[in-house]
Amino acid sequence: MPVGTQGTVKGLTPADLRASGTRILLANTYHLMLRPGSGLIRSLGGLHRFMAWDRPILTDSGGYQVLSLKDLVKVTEEGVEFRSHLDGNLEFLTPERAMEVQADLGSDIAVTLDHAVPLPLDPASQREAGDRTLRWTERSLRHARTLTLPGGRSQLLFAIVQGGGDPGLRKEMAERTGAFECDGFAIGGLSVGESKRETWALARATTAALPRDRPRYLMGMGTPIDLLDGIACGIDLFDCVLPTRNARNGMAFTSEGPVNIRNAEHARSDRPLDASCACEACALFTRAYLRHLHLAGEILAHRMLTLHNVTFYQTLMEAARRATLGGLLHEYAREFSERYRERGGNPPAPA
Amino acid sequence: MPVGTQGTVKGLTPADLRASGTRILLANTYHLMLRPGSGLIRSLGGLHRFMAWDRPILTDSGGYQVLSLKDLVKVTEEGVEFRSHLDGNLEFLTPERAMEVQADLGSDIAVTLDHAVPLPLDPASQREAGDRTLRWTERSLRHARTLTLPGGRSQLLFAIVQGGGDPGLRKEMAERTGAFECDGFAIGGLSVGESKRETWALARATTAALPRDRPRYLMGMGTPIDLLDGIACGIDLFDCVLPTRNARNGMAFTSEGPVNIRNAEHARSDRPLDASCACEACALFTRAYLRHLHLAGEILAHRMLTLHNVTFYQTLMEAARRATLGGLLHEYAREFSERYRERGGNPPAPA
Repeated sequence: MPVGTQGTVKGLTPADLRASGTRILLANTYHLMLRPGSGLIRSLGGLHRFMAWDRPILTDSGGYQVLSLKDLVKVTEEGVEFRSHLDGNLEFLTPERAMEVQADLGSDIAVTLDHAVPLPLDPASQREAGDRTLRWTERSLRHARTLTLPGGRSQLLFAIVQGGGDPGLRKEMAERTGAFECDGFAIGGLSVGESKRETWALARATTAALPRDRPRYLMGMGTPIDLLDGIACGIDLFDCVLPTRNARNGMAFTSEGPVNIRNAEHARSDRPLDASCACEACALFTRAYLRHLHLAGEILAHRMLTLHNVTFYQTLMEAARRATLGGLLHEYAREFSERYRERGGNPPAPA
Repeated sequence: MPVGTQGTVKGLTPADLRASGTRILLANTYHLMLRPGSGLIRSLGGLHRFMAWDRPILTDSGGYQVLSLKDLVKVTEEGVEFRSHLDGNLEFLTPERAMEVQADLGSDIAVTLDHAVPLPLDPASQREAGDRTLRWTERSLRHARTLTLPGGRSQLLFAIVQGGGDPGLRKEMAERTGAFECDGFAIGGLSVGESKRETWALARATTAALPRDRPRYLMGMGTPIDLLDGIACGIDLFDCVLPTRNARNGMAFTSEGPVNIRNAEHARSDRPLDASCACEACALFTRAYLRHLHLAGEILAHRMLTLHNVTFYQTLMEAARRATLGGLLHEYAREFSERYRERGGNPPAPA
């Protein structure tokens, strides 16, 4: 899922997103509740109409963004008190409020409020956050069932699994979360300070203990290779700002590894960003032109690299889907990773 | 002509420009000679290939931008010495160099180097700049005929008419410029400090004295009403940054007059920017959404308002063209102006 933080995937229109192969996108509850406000979006018919996107939308619960505010945040059993990054106003996000905002937005998939924690962290605090997440999950799901959506839409509910950095606690949390009546599961609190090796051990501990009949969504990851590793762990859905954020920094994902369009080596290059890509940027423009646009600060650079990167991710996921259906995921992932790494390695993870 | 200063019309792709009805665009010699450099563009096949635009391109001579640098500029008979706004390097633009850069770019229409002056100015200096412009025109045209273009393209040559704020001098300059063998005429040095009334008196003095068999291009203007007034004065071509620059400031041109999308009145508006416009922005999005995007600093706001404003200008010119062919230009212009002014008046001219 490309990330449409503020109700738009950075510079792209709905037609661009369809052309990229995007089937579903993510929008951020936190950002939209503050600006323009979820009531306004509901009054205009919901987020699909607001942004003119007729395919599925998943909204997160806002918990991750709110807790990322760090010093400005106070967590109690009732919910999370925080100060808006826009105007410093005091705001309060509860499990109930998170679901109300998502109902206002009318997303196809809503996610329960969780208490995410950074790693490393002492075991007692990990346990406390995990238990609180379970109580908030119950409150979120119960309240969500009482809400109506704009235009009579219906909404699937995903429960978030936490559990910190302990595989045993992860397993317990996955089992207890799996007992809720809900439509799918989101895995939170990964890639928050632990090593990549630990990330996947924790993801495996989680997916192994979740019901097998419902989709699993790994929140906030990752690089192309992360996505293939995640699929191998039983993950079905991902979201990440890497393709869109890196595009604005001049970093393109290509079948030959990452390309930094600022590099002087591209100054006179008449090659496309990625010869094996069918997006508009690769069909029309040379690296020399895209580099010129980027260095000149032209927004067409951001738009074209964003379109390309989103297309690259969608194309990768489509290939992985086919490989999975054909029973060849491991071979595909190994081959892709070797080729990708030898030509420049993984790009840095998002900040 | 939408303005593609740095080899791109702010945020739009060639497909967007075609959809807007754009038949020809302007690119700035000054900007492109400094970055990425005209030699680089020639080596990649010329500006059409560089920016993937297969319709006509007019390039200016760079004189206006260079002379706008003011304190950093020294004009001699040989040419204009100036310091680059990018790196402060000392550069020299002569009539010959201006045509060489435009040949490198491979534009369809190149413009001679002129000596533009601000108004008011003493008569002797106006005369001096006018006479120098004639000498530079001759040098520009002579040199341009010796140059080859990338890909064997051919190039039309437009001579710039100056003459300051004196209608008599304008008439003389137009007659003397009209004697050159060239394909069309550009009218420079207007809207540089004089009143609108004076602008059109000077434009009329110029067009009345120019040959009737070749197109006239009024440089750097203007508002929608300016364009209609210009056509009535016998102008065929215009360029202006208003539609693109105003778009980035949240100002849309509409059939109901100017709309400032930042205004609170649009916060909950489910109306399109302009109900009578067929552009993608008006077909898909409400004012409420565009306002949200603009206030959130999202580049999709700039892209959509730019697309709309360029479409508005092209639609206006198409209507004016039909009215002119039907002998109804004055009626059309009067009706448009009355409707436009009563609903918000003219937007401010560009700085």
